[in-house]
Amino acid sequence: MAQKTFDRAALEQLIVKRFFYAPSFQIYGGVAGFYDFGPTGCALMNNIISVWRNHFVLEEEMLELDTTIMTTHEVLKTSGHVDKFADWMCKDLKNGEIFRADHVVEAVLEARLAGDYQARAAKEGNAEAQVLVEKKDPKKKKKKGTVVAVELEEAVRKQYEETLAQIDNYSGQELADIMKKFDIRSPETGNELSVPQEFNLMFDSSIGPTGQLKGYLRPETAQGQFLNFKRLLEFNNDKMPFASAQVGRSFRNEISPRSGLLRVREFTMAEIEHFVDPENKDHPNFVDVKDVVITLLSKDVQLSGKTQTRDMTVGEAVEKKIIDNQTLGYFIARIYLFLTKIGIKRDRLRFRQHMDNEMAHYATDCWDAEIHTSYGWIECVGCADRSAYDLTVHSRRTKEKLVVREQLETPRVIEQWQLEINKKTFGPKYKKNAKAVEEALLSYTDECYEKLQKDLETNGSASVEVDGVTFEVSKDDVTIARGTVTEHIREYTPNVIEPSFGIGRILYALLEHSWWVREDDEARNVLSFPTVVAPFKCCLLPLSGNACFDPFVKKFSRQLRQSGVSTRTDDSKASIGRRYARNDELGTPFAITIDFQTVEDNTVTLRQRDSTEQIRDTFENILKIVKESGDDI
Amino acid sequence: MAQKTFDRAALEQLIVKRFFYAPSFQIYGGVAGFYDFGPTGCALMNNIISVWRNHFVLEEEMLELDTTIMTTHEVLKTSGHVDKFADWMCKDLKNGEIFRADHVVEAVLEARLAGDYQARAAKEGNAEAQVLVEKKDPKKKKKKGTVVAVELEEAVRKQYEETLAQIDNYSGQELADIMKKFDIRSPETGNELSVPQEFNLMFDSSIGPTGQLKGYLRPETAQGQFLNFKRLLEFNNDKMPFASAQVGRSFRNEISPRSGLLRVREFTMAEIEHFVDPENKDHPNFVDVKDVVITLLSKDVQLSGKTQTRDMTVGEAVEKKIIDNQTLGYFIARIYLFLTKIGIKRDRLRFRQHMDNEMAHYATDCWDAEIHTSYGWIECVGCADRSAYDLTVHSRRTKEKLVVREQLETPRVIEQWQLEINKKTFGPKYKKNAKAVEEALLSYTDECYEKLQKDLETNGSASVEVDGVTFEVSKDDVTIARGTVTEHIREYTPNVIEPSFGIGRILYALLEHSWWVREDDEARNVLSFPTVVAPFKCCLLPLSGNACFDPFVKKFSRQLRQSGVSTRTDDSKASIGRRYARNDELGTPFAITIDFQTVEDNTVTLRQRDSTEQIRDTFENILKIVKESGDDI
Repeated sequence: MAQKTFDRAALEQLIVKRFFYAPSFQIYGGVAGFYDFGPTGCALMNNIISVWRNHFVLEEEMLELDTTIMTTHEVLKTSGHVDKFADWMCKDLKNGEIFRADHVVEAVLEARLAGDYQARAAKEGNAEAQVLVEKKDPKKKKKKGTVVAVELEEAVRKQYEETLAQIDNYSGQELADIMKKFDIRSPETGNELSVPQEFNLMFDSSIGPTGQLKGYLRPETAQGQFLNFKRLLEFNNDKMPFASAQVGRSFRNEISPRSGLLRVREFTMAEIEHFVDPENKDHPNFVDVKDVVITLLSKDVQLSGKTQTRDMTVGEAVEKKIIDNQTLGYFIARIYLFLTKIGIKRDRLRFRQHMDNEMAHYATDCWDAEIHTSYGWIECVGCADRSAYDLTVHSRRTKEKLVVREQLETPRVIEQWQLEINKKTFGPKYKKNAKAVEEALLSYTDECYEKLQKDLETNGSASVEVDGVTFEVSKDDVTIARGTVTEHIREYTPNVIEPSFGIGRILYALLEHSWWVREDDEARNVLSFPTVVAPFKCCLLPLSGNACFDPFVKKFSRQLRQSGVSTRTDDSKASIGRRYARNDELGTPFAITIDFQTVEDNTVTLRQRDSTEQIRDTFENILKIVKESGDDI
Repeated sequence: MAQKTFDRAALEQLIVKRFFYAPSFQIYGGVAGFYDFGPTGCALMNNIISVWRNHFVLEEEMLELDTTIMTTHEVLKTSGHVDKFADWMCKDLKNGEIFRADHVVEAVLEARLAGDYQARAAKEGNAEAQVLVEKKDPKKKKKKGTVVAVELEEAVRKQYEETLAQIDNYSGQELADIMKKFDIRSPETGNELSVPQEFNLMFDSSIGPTGQLKGYLRPETAQGQFLNFKRLLEFNNDKMPFASAQVGRSFRNEISPRSGLLRVREFTMAEIEHFVDPENKDHPNFVDVKDVVITLLSKDVQLSGKTQTRDMTVGEAVEKKIIDNQTLGYFIARIYLFLTKIGIKRDRLRFRQHMDNEMAHYATDCWDAEIHTSYGWIECVGCADRSAYDLTVHSRRTKEKLVVREQLETPRVIEQWQLEINKKTFGPKYKKNAKAVEEALLSYTDECYEKLQKDLETNGSASVEVDGVTFEVSKDDVTIARGTVTEHIREYTPNVIEPSFGIGRILYALLEHSWWVREDDEARNVLSFPTVVAPFKCCLLPLSGNACFDPFVKKFSRQLRQSGVSTRTDDSKASIGRRYARNDELGTPFAITIDFQTVEDNTVTLRQRDSTEQIRDTFENILKIVKESGDDI
């Protein structure tokens, strides 16, 4: 693995030097978790998004939306984000410094394990191991508090390791228990920490001059798509399945942003919401991808405490029910094809299934595309089955029907529970609440009716909850029995399969995967982006500042641009060699040099970035080569 | 003018029906000033942005950035937005309803003028005029309060008209005076209104878990570009002039959003910051645009109370100093070329110069590209000379030098005021403030030194302000005299020319300019977008649901996409005629129909949107026609 020899500091230096991105407001001291993308990073991101749009939106005729970032309180209350989109934080009881609770537990336990390792190494006189411990990541270690070489008992060490393995999945109470049990204190000061408190991760604001309408910056682009479901279905001529898509900014007010672009407070996402019949999750184009081989890490394997991946075709994975259905499988394959197209290395890409306790509040199944970086395996794309959760809650809250109505070719006779209200007793008994109780009862699902019927039979009464108040319903109030209904139209709430892309994370992983240093010259960085995403496709270099080159620069750059080749002219006074080196660092695949021979016979030199190979030909022929190399979109 | 016969309600209906855009959160009741863009509107916007990027960023090798929306308090305090980016609001003293002060004055005075007109018309028995008054805009009138037919005195009417003509330019105090003078009350209730109060238009939030770091959603993308000036200059190999650019979302918490996309709370902007030597605002490519003819409405003409425009070449306008310099002229011409390229009508586009009292706090000169719509002439692009304002204030606040250092070919000898501190008296006199006072004095401009010298000579002392505290400096503390300095390097703060595009406004204006109804059929709307921005370039129509067409749909749509033609398949059961009509409403320039003959000989029918002309040829030839028509980017 590249991990061991990977010099992250050198890459970070290159990223800032060539202005891929850099901390925002830096002349004001900066604020953690905010980054500005420079000309190279911005072009790289635009190109990634452009490939994404071609690959997903255009190729599959998805319905792209552009909805607002500002979102009202009521929408996000309904979606569950106001109540559940939170992390746990705790405070240094003396100096008030704030930590994310899971991060502080992680940091302290990792430091203790490192100390244990160090103590054992010293005892065994294993100098190499000791050095390795110290080298591992000196910066990180320092931040995480002092490593003290103390040997741990075997049982304690095991407990620490088990805790760390599940660190993403603890509730606030569990974190509090762990902190107490292991005496977790601030790694900076050693002071005691407060009990973890919930902190909602949404930035809030208020809309309009009265300040009474609360709003949040969206934490995902998905809600804007769900709210438009009815319009989208109509736009699609009521045909199912279909997908909407959106690219845009989202926000998370992280407690302690870290790891560069991997955990930031403002970021660009690309999300697809594929609406599908819950009774038929086959995908019409599954056949096109069934032979794609992907690397899987399933739930079962992880539950058995292992991380061994398996390579198999998507077809096989769906057939064996490792991946639940064709639609989920289809998107996993399409994600794989997209990521490898833009330059993510195949052998550093895997799909990991979420375990039940780590899924977001809305998901029923979820596979992450994880990309390997120097930070370990990083979730870059989530592919979740959100079931009918979002459409159901918004529909319930707004009383707007968010359903598909399907004309049945042959009417269906369905046996189901049927409820009848006894109007005579109902009104007098519930008085002003009668209507609300009736509505609540009528909105029950078949399963609920079955339970109600059982309760009534067993106890003579059952409880019904209406807006938080519980009412008792007795046998005399309602009649409930099995009956048949003939349906001509089938009405259903679609399920949603959601591939959700963190563009900044993908971009960072791509930088790591593309970067290398020429063996013959330690100082020469190269970023080997595929042409399709390279910030600039071609660089135009006049040999010197001699005016005779000017008309050629002007003519060639216009012709390159007109052929769709984004071009940057570098007419600085640096030597050609230095300018080639600069272009290697910008990841520009081609450089065209104009020299005195060009003035005579219209030929130019083409230099290829990775091989440094050079050929000479007429500009027209060179243009053809450059143009065609970008046509692999 | 199209104004009179323009049926805006019909266009708005079309916009929602074909989901160009629609109110956000509508199933929750909606909130004024927020719109979601649907598949057509989103594609239209993406295409406008794509043309913009080609026309400006790629063609001129601008440095595109992508900076954060969330911006810290300190940055926007320095830029002046915290103090000055505000509107005036007033409250109905009884029911608390909030109005924008200038809007309420406008509404009430317009209603009184309408009442006056009505009364006169009635008196003169001019029935037609009366009807016209009532018809004018019934919806708008209703919102603005009841029009009562009361005749006004000639002098009063004149005062009202004069006030309305300058309604955009009043200060809070002036608005208060006008409201008192004309007894302006709530148009809804007739209740008294509060004195206008300032309301800052930025959405605020706080960053991080402590809640102590205040942030705002940016009101413009420009500040993010200024903060990165140093990095940009370095990236550009220290060469001047150069431009940065940014496309992104900005926010304004409008008091009372109105007029659809024209005044919203969240919107997409595209901004260019062109950094230029203040002593030389010539533009190297001015020659390319000097013959472009544009329509101008200069400051002088407006000051004389007229609105007569003049057509002239940009070259002439710059030569006659109507437009101040080549760079400003260059961008005005480029803006003109961009807007007409995407389909804005030439005869409904003008450039209006701002009068001195209507410019933003940072601008020294400003020309708006105004587009004529049913709402009148609307500012869609501002082209302002921000001088050195922003770089200067950020530099002063952060102590970071935001300057260009230019190596002089021949050293310059400059005569200027020079200040010497008398160290002997200075320290003892100012004690702990000595350093701050010294720094303040040393940062003076030449003009300030001149004034200081005069004051010292006249009064023997002068005052110096340091962070709000005033110190007295006497003749003994400093020596100030003319002297010469030899400079080898010229250091200067660049000026900024800023073309700033409101993409939503341009998009709305384009919808108005593109819309027409076929004469032979009142119900048939057409949106004649140029191919380059049309949401979908081509529609693929199988004659019926017959399975024999499926392989052709699949094959042709892939070939179209691979040729860069965005394609939408319409295989709904509607007749071909109805599907053509639908495509006219989506603004799709081409439709390709697959029928039984296609299956036999691979020929298809191509139908052109505007002419409805049809031709039949092989798919390959048709593809060539469609492809080439989109190549005019």
